[in-house]
Amino acid sequence: MSVAVKAARIDSVMSRWQPDAPGRLQQAAFELYAEHGYEDTTVAEIAERASLTERTFFRHFADKREVLFRGSSELQQLIVDAVDAAPASATPMQAIATGLAAAGAIFDARMRPYSRQRQTVIDANPELQEREVSKFAVLAAALADALRRRGVPNPAAGLTADAGTAVFRVAFDHWIRDDSERDFAWFVHDGIAELRAVAAG
Amino acid sequence: MSVAVKAARIDSVMSRWQPDAPGRLQQAAFELYAEHGYEDTTVAEIAERASLTERTFFRHFADKREVLFRGSSELQQLIVDAVDAAPASATPMQAIATGLAAAGAIFDARMRPYSRQRQTVIDANPELQEREVSKFAVLAAALADALRRRGVPNPAAGLTADAGTAVFRVAFDHWIRDDSERDFAWFVHDGIAELRAVAAG
Repeated sequence: MSVAVKAARIDSVMSRWQPDAPGRLQQAAFELYAEHGYEDTTVAEIAERASLTERTFFRHFADKREVLFRGSSELQQLIVDAVDAAPASATPMQAIATGLAAAGAIFDARMRPYSRQRQTVIDANPELQEREVSKFAVLAAALADALRRRGVPNPAAGLTADAGTAVFRVAFDHWIRDDSERDFAWFVHDGIAELRAVAAG
Repeated sequence: MSVAVKAARIDSVMSRWQPDAPGRLQQAAFELYAEHGYEDTTVAEIAERASLTERTFFRHFADKREVLFRGSSELQQLIVDAVDAAPASATPMQAIATGLAAAGAIFDARMRPYSRQRQTVIDANPELQEREVSKFAVLAAALADALRRRGVPNPAAGLTADAGTAVFRVAFDHWIRDDSERDFAWFVHDGIAELRAVAAG
């Protein structure tokens, strides 16, 4: 039996009783990134820690970097759907606030330690920071499209989307550092108030 | 005489009467990108069009992509210096507006056709767009640092810097499309007014 076939069989057996392979790989990766640093962690080590094979890793992730950005498309879709569903009477910024606050369905108390750990890894690595910046640019473009679907013209659509993305970053940054019971939506609304204050200044 | 030595001599002779090799390479590159597309243009073609050697090209630019981002550090420094020099009484957003408006020293009427041509090339290529996004992120970080030097606390510093960068993008986008006599600073102030409106909404 070839190594590949053997690996596939092991995976197949494992997946019968441990369905969330990507989740386990992600958890293993985060532990290793925290213990040895992102640069010094290999895919082989991640797979081993998760008791899975490298083959399984590459079925779910392009590389070790993408483990950190798992779920970002779903997060963006959640936000955009909420913008689309905001009442027609909502101003552009209110629609964006509704969308960003909806991210609280993912960013809950259970998620916070993981988000904090993930951010520590990203903040320590310029390549990962660049990847994150590019994800935020994609989010901003998607928010601008959502606003245009609501009939918001340019440049208001782009400006509101960019400013909303800045609010999202600030809200996220405050939320992961916070130890109170305040939820993600609270930080979004706080960020919007802060934006209003600096724009008016 | 080796090819390299010969090339160096040709360059040396040329540079005696045509001092601005990077400027000529940039102009040649822009012409070729417009004529044949960015992807289909080679460094050899750029050098030939500029009547210079590839060796000279690589003395000034890492690759053909960087030709499009020549001067971006100087632009950023100009903006940051103007933020630093803004009166102590200026609000954070006023200081940012002062900084962005100073970019008008580079973005003048003579520059506009070139900026327009450059943007057309960037807008047609996702890799270049990503590079541009990353340059804007660097600008936003530098603006946030400048605000913190002025004593602006977080999160106001980061939010104002991000929102200011969004204003810069909108102002630039409007300026390159405009055919009136309005200068870059006009579009910055218009963008700030628009930001204030969307944030208040």
